[in-house]
Amino acid sequence: MTETLVASQSKETIIGFDRPFTVIGERINPTGRKKLAAEMNEGNFETVIADALAQAAAGAMILDVNAGVTAVDPNKTEPPLMRQTIEIVQNTVDLPLCIDSSVPSALEAGLEVAKGRPLVNSVTGEEDRLEVILPLIKKYDVPVVAISNDETGISEDPDVRFEVAKKIVEHAMDYGIKPHDIVVDPLVMPIGAMGTAGQQVFALVRRLREELKVNTTCGASNISFGMPNRRVLTGHFLAMAASHGMTSAIMNPLHDEDMHAIFAANVLNGTDKDCRAWTSKFRPPLAEGQESARGARGGRRRRRG
Amino acid sequence: MTETLVASQSKETIIGFDRPFTVIGERINPTGRKKLAAEMNEGNFETVIADALAQAAAGAMILDVNAGVTAVDPNKTEPPLMRQTIEIVQNTVDLPLCIDSSVPSALEAGLEVAKGRPLVNSVTGEEDRLEVILPLIKKYDVPVVAISNDETGISEDPDVRFEVAKKIVEHAMDYGIKPHDIVVDPLVMPIGAMGTAGQQVFALVRRLREELKVNTTCGASNISFGMPNRRVLTGHFLAMAASHGMTSAIMNPLHDEDMHAIFAANVLNGTDKDCRAWTSKFRPPLAEGQESARGARGGRRRRRG
Repeated sequence: MTETLVASQSKETIIGFDRPFTVIGERINPTGRKKLAAEMNEGNFETVIADALAQAAAGAMILDVNAGVTAVDPNKTEPPLMRQTIEIVQNTVDLPLCIDSSVPSALEAGLEVAKGRPLVNSVTGEEDRLEVILPLIKKYDVPVVAISNDETGISEDPDVRFEVAKKIVEHAMDYGIKPHDIVVDPLVMPIGAMGTAGQQVFALVRRLREELKVNTTCGASNISFGMPNRRVLTGHFLAMAASHGMTSAIMNPLHDEDMHAIFAANVLNGTDKDCRAWTSKFRPPLAEGQESARGARGGRRRRRG
Repeated sequence: MTETLVASQSKETIIGFDRPFTVIGERINPTGRKKLAAEMNEGNFETVIADALAQAAAGAMILDVNAGVTAVDPNKTEPPLMRQTIEIVQNTVDLPLCIDSSVPSALEAGLEVAKGRPLVNSVTGEEDRLEVILPLIKKYDVPVVAISNDETGISEDPDVRFEVAKKIVEHAMDYGIKPHDIVVDPLVMPIGAMGTAGQQVFALVRRLREELKVNTTCGASNISFGMPNRRVLTGHFLAMAASHGMTSAIMNPLHDEDMHAIFAANVLNGTDKDCRAWTSKFRPPLAEGQESARGARGGRRRRRG
């Protein structure tokens, strides 16, 4: 029954074993989006605002915010841009945020301005990262994504990745951070490059849940990198991972394939109570006769009022 | 590494733990298809033939054949109609068949005419069924679908359903039938009526595979009975069940949602070697320039020839 509380100023999202799967919207991220990077560099946040609104409307429950517009001197450029982007996003939508950077000072800049209880993305198993990020997590009392790689890189052996995750959880506990505030990313490899990538994630997610009792997340679309018909493959990966106990993903809520997979997984994992979310999303529209009957009733009621 | 061999006169399909998921086409079944029932009753097999061809073209690996056109005196009507339908289907397509009936004499009629090594669908845990069907299975040396209900009906308790499956496997062994020739159907309930139906199947499939070491199947579309947007829900159910180790399903290969789920599950479970089936199905068509370049080369080659 592990639960990770993430919050904006007034809205809570709980990532949890018995909760509907948590959709973390991935769009506000200039990595690989040259146009967005250029806009953000120029102080133009129109796309950021549009992406925030669109993802919220599509059902995102947390918004990832990344401000990595340049590889040149990110220690200087990223903190102020992260601060500004967070402020703009939280003035646009009232959703919990995920502060996403590999630059510790950018994470801290985001933490200084983010309202509520943001999720920090991320810490790895590298010693110098642990020593810098975990004190921040403790200081701000926020949850953190733990990526299961370390100084040796990303192991192809899932047992090694499990041990790295375990090491991060233990280090965090030394700082007084509870396992329920660690959301482990077991690392999703492209299936086109590593044929066991799917099975590895499914097995790792089960172990992380049963043995470490932590919530899990991943960058879902990595699985289909380089493959044709990526969206359908990513969608099914999400449903399969969820059925093995994955509790959240950084994904694209604007892709119907992703969202339908999440809705279906919630139904089939028993976290969509009485299938209410599914039926309200997909209930067929009323036929014309029914519509006009309803209209007539409404009309009568209005005439009475 | 359990493998169940099913065969037509010249074609083999192996249901197996490390094999691509086996698609058993469900269409040749007059249950709930009044028009088809009426046609078959009149000796008109046009729809049967069209369904056989369409399912084979869509990627079915085994064709289910059911001839239950009436509830009135099926012991008299069903055996000859099963015989005739099997003969017509195996003259139409060279695919292994699944002889589907609740009437033992219809199963035997089908077994008499089916070429190769058909799958028999089904035996239940009811004592009188076991005593009639298992000797047939032994006599014809064919595999059988074992449905995990018995005299007490379908238990809502998955542990009871597991025990029924175990009882059938043990009874079969008493007859000299090997567990690899038993394909267990753990029974799929409509998720709209029982919110735990998905989780039950996933857990049962894992136990049946790990403890009884048997292949599994199900009537996949049951899961979405009564729900809106059934196809998407059934598709994701198939991928999720496959990721827990289900090895076959009686399903509709004419539904893209079902088949895309199977293709994706094979990729993600590592049974689509080098993702070849996926890439060959979904590789984007060549752009116009590439097409004409290819045409030009073809043209030059033809001129040389």
